[in-house]
Parts: sequence; structure tokens; C-alpha cells
Amino acid sequence: MTAAWTEHPATSLRWRPGDRLDALDTRSTPGYTGRKRAAKVLRAGHADDLSDLQERLFAHGRTGGVRSVLLILQGMDTSGKGGIVRHVVGMVDPQGVRCRGFGRPTPEEQAHDFLWRIRRALPSPGLLGVFDRSHYEDVLVVRVEELQPEASWRAHYDEINAFEAEIAAAGTEIVKVMLAISPEEQLERLVSRLDRPEKHWRYDPADLRARERWGEYQAAYQEMLDRTSTDVAPWYVVPADRKWFARLAVSELLRHTLRGLDLRWPAADFDVERQRRLLTGG
Amino acid sequence: MTAAWTEHPATSLRWRPGDRLDALDTRSTPGYTGRKRAAKVLRAGHADDLSDLQERLFAHGRTGGVRSVLLILQGMDTSGKGGIVRHVVGMVDPQGVRCRGFGRPTPEEQAHDFLWRIRRALPSPGLLGVFDRSHYEDVLVVRVEELQPEASWRAHYDEINAFEAEIAAAGTEIVKVMLAISPEEQLERLVSRLDRPEKHWRYDPADLRARERWGEYQAAYQEMLDRTSTDVAPWYVVPADRKWFARLAVSELLRHTLRGLDLRWPAADFDVERQRRLLTGG
Repeated sequence: MTAAWTEHPATSLRWRPGDRLDALDTRSTPGYTGRKRAAKVLRAGHADDLSDLQERLFAHGRTGGVRSVLLILQGMDTSGKGGIVRHVVGMVDPQGVRCRGFGRPTPEEQAHDFLWRIRRALPSPGLLGVFDRSHYEDVLVVRVEELQPEASWRAHYDEINAFEAEIAAAGTEIVKVMLAISPEEQLERLVSRLDRPEKHWRYDPADLRARERWGEYQAAYQEMLDRTSTDVAPWYVVPADRKWFARLAVSELLRHTLRGLDLRWPAADFDVERQRRLLTGG
Repeated sequence: MTAAWTEHPATSLRWRPGDRLDALDTRSTPGYTGRKRAAKVLRAGHADDLSDLQERLFAHGRTGGVRSVLLILQGMDTSGKGGIVRHVVGMVDPQGVRCRGFGRPTPEEQAHDFLWRIRRALPSPGLLGVFDRSHYEDVLVVRVEELQPEASWRAHYDEINAFEAEIAAAGTEIVKVMLAISPEEQLERLVSRLDRPEKHWRYDPADLRARERWGEYQAAYQEMLDRTSTDVAPWYVVPADRKWFARLAVSELLRHTLRGLDLRWPAADFDVERQRRLLTGG
């Protein structure tokens, strides 16, 4: 924490019972008083620390430890999930990272329970897993597009909570981040994609459907937050109209989570001095 | 290419019939006349280009393309494979990267053909796959430690060439890098691991066994290079006593490979102006 933060994002951004998504100012920067340039400098300044913490986790996994971290990113199209992966997750050693995006389920995935593909993508001990979309799509797009009967997706809330409690108990620290943007900001970002031919591949006319149903998605997000923000797997709602704030905030949440694991460097399970003699022939 | 390179590493480091590993100066910097600081600046200066090329590959994969890249890293302990992953692969978006390390095979892996675990880890279209060790362990440690009869590992050379030709034909561009260090440099690096408690987890007394058999490993590497450097999957031997040179060289090899794919940004498969009108209500 530095002077620019008046409150840690792990506190200020954590979803609380009674919070209303429609009351959130998506351009705000809760707990942070600095500006864009200072935010970038601040984040860059924490790169070594983040990297060190991630390497401790990796070392822990290599020496029999069971802890892992799972960062789940949700948000409307263009909310900046990919940017978080590139600019925040990209700050640490890719060797210790497993990224996975979840789009429309494949036929094979659809033949299974909705958590099947999720379980297969969970980070092994020592790894930082990153989900760009996740099992939460099953209470978001599935709900809004009426891909399943209500009784079916409604059951998912409890199923998700039980699932997350199970993997948390097995050693996975879960950080759930919803990137919240306004429809106006999304419009700007979509138009900007159209303006730049190198971004056309990221534009899908079908995405406009979700935009037309903004209110329904917000209601689905609201209930998701209300029903699945638990002590072992809390939601953080990050105002994301300002990309620099979202990136700074998520990097702090990740750092906070890794630090919370309180991992020491594994101790040598060999005689250091003896090895030195063996090596140097002394 | 810039002034500091007199010959592109794709040329100067490429293994040629008749090359001798024991004639290589592992402190040399073939084709490069600059020094350490300039090398770091040069590599950092290419970060955007490398990132752009990798994103084109990713976009290509997202739009039905079949190309992928597989970077295979081999080398003795402490040769800097992990550093290449962190410092070179770490320059691009982790979303498009799949890293996999291959250690001693698990019982499940051992129950299968030696290429089974390799096939399962191949990069999907659009991805950059990175192998820290690989199927080449089956003609290296397996040979030197006599884990299989000679007839068995000897058959692997042809099997590997057939396998790599098959995946190359399916769209995977293969870059094989051997990081070559001297035993003296390895000694320094091992002692340095002993000196730093936070590096003890990376030190394994069992690794000394490979060090004692340095000559046998060099012979195994020599034959590996002679037998498996093919047109579709050439080996590059990178002198790696100077980490900064190895990192610069591999970043250039990766850039060269990605550029060779000659991928354009995918064209829009929708009417851009119509989408603009739909979005802006114009």
C-alpha cells in the first residue's frame, strides 16, 4: 500500500450484501486517489514483488505443497478481461500460469455437467490459474438467453458454491473479479474496434445481442454477486471504465491474495555444505 | 536486424551437418557484436514487435487458422531454460502461451508410448507452445542412464522425425533450441543456487549425477543434433554461458519464426459500416 491508496482494494472492492450494481459508478476509482500515470508507475513498481510471490507459490507446488490460486474474470464484452491477462498476469513468469478462456461449450463439453470443463482446467498445485469467463456463464448468458429452464440454472448457484468450497478446501485460493463497465464505455470500445482493422477479429456482431439485453445481464450479474460471493470465494467488483484503474486494482488483489498464502521459500532437504563440497571438490 | 547483428541467429546458430558440439565456445555470441547492456536494450526494443506477431498468430487461431508455434528448450541443468521462459516467452500475452515442463514421466505416462504425453501438450491452433525439456529426454537421460535398451532409444530418432514432420504438416512451426553451457559455468550456477536460500528448491542433489556424466550427455546431444535437425524442425544451438545473449538470440529466433508465418490480421467477416450504424443508431 502506498499513499495513493486510501483503502485497500481487497476491502473497497469486495462485494457486500446489499450492494447494488446499478449504483456503481464505473468510472470511479474506489480507494485510489492518484491518476493514470501514477497508477502505471505504481503497478510497474510492484512487478518484482508480484513476481517474487508467484515464484514462491510455484516453488511451493514443486516441493509437495497443495496451494494454488485461481483468478476468475467476468464482465461484459470489451470490459477488459483480456487486458488484465496481458498486463497483470503478464507480469509474472508464464511457466507458473495457466490461462483458459471459456466460450460457448463444445459438443463434448455440453454432453457433460457444466462444471466438467471447469474441473479439467483447474490449476495444479503451485500454479496461478486464470479463467477468462468461467462457470459463471452458466448463470449469465444461459439465464439471459434462456438456454436452459430456470430451475436448471437456478440450481447452479448452490452447485457453484459447493464446488468452490470444495476446491478451496483442497488448497485453491479463489479470487473472483467482475469488471464493470457502462454501456457508454462499451459503445466507445466497440466503435474503436471497428475503426481499427487489426481489431476486427475481436468484433463479433453476435455480441450486440448481449448489449441489447444490458439490463437483463445486469440483473443476472446482480444475482450472481448476491448468491455466490462467499467467504472462501468472494467477488470483487472493479469499476473498469478506466482500464488503468482496473489493471492496478486487479494487480493489487492478486498481490494481496498471494501474500495471504504466506508462503516461505522451501527449505533445503539436503545438506547444503556437503553439496558445496561435492561440487567444488573441497 | 540491427547493426549489432552481423548475421541473423537463424543462420549463425542453426545446426549444420558436420558441426561439433565440443568445438562450440559456450561464451561466444555468434553473429552479435554488441555487449550485454545493448543486448538488453535491443531485446526490449523488440517487445512490441514480438507481441504483435504473437497476437496475429492468436487472432489467426481464433478465426479458423491452423498454424501454431512450438518452442522446444533443451539443455543441461542451469542452462537457462527457465530464464528463457520468463524473460523471452514472458514478453508476449500469456493468453496465447501454453508452457509445459517435462520431468521424469509419471506412472500413467510411462504406461504409454513416449510421445503420448507430448501429443497431449501440443499447442492448439493460434497458440505458442513452450516445452521445457521434451521428447528429446528419451534420447538423452534415457540413453545416458540406460533406462531403456539401446535398440529402443535408438528407434526414437526416426520416430521423433516422423512425429515432428507430422505435426509440422498439420500446421505447427517447430523451433528447437539447445542451450549450451560449459561445465565451469554450470558449477558457478549450482554454487550460486547453494548460496541463495531462495534458490535451494531449484537444487536437486540428484542433478549432480548428470554433471558427472557430462561427456556422455554431450555425446547424446551430439547425436540428437545430428539425427534430428531436419528442414521442418531444425535445431538451433545457442551458446548460453552469457544469459543475456541466449535470451536475445532466442527472442530473435522466435520473432523470425513468427514473422515467417506471414500472418495478416484476419479480415472482417461482417459489414463494418453496417455494424457502425447498428451501434451508433446512425
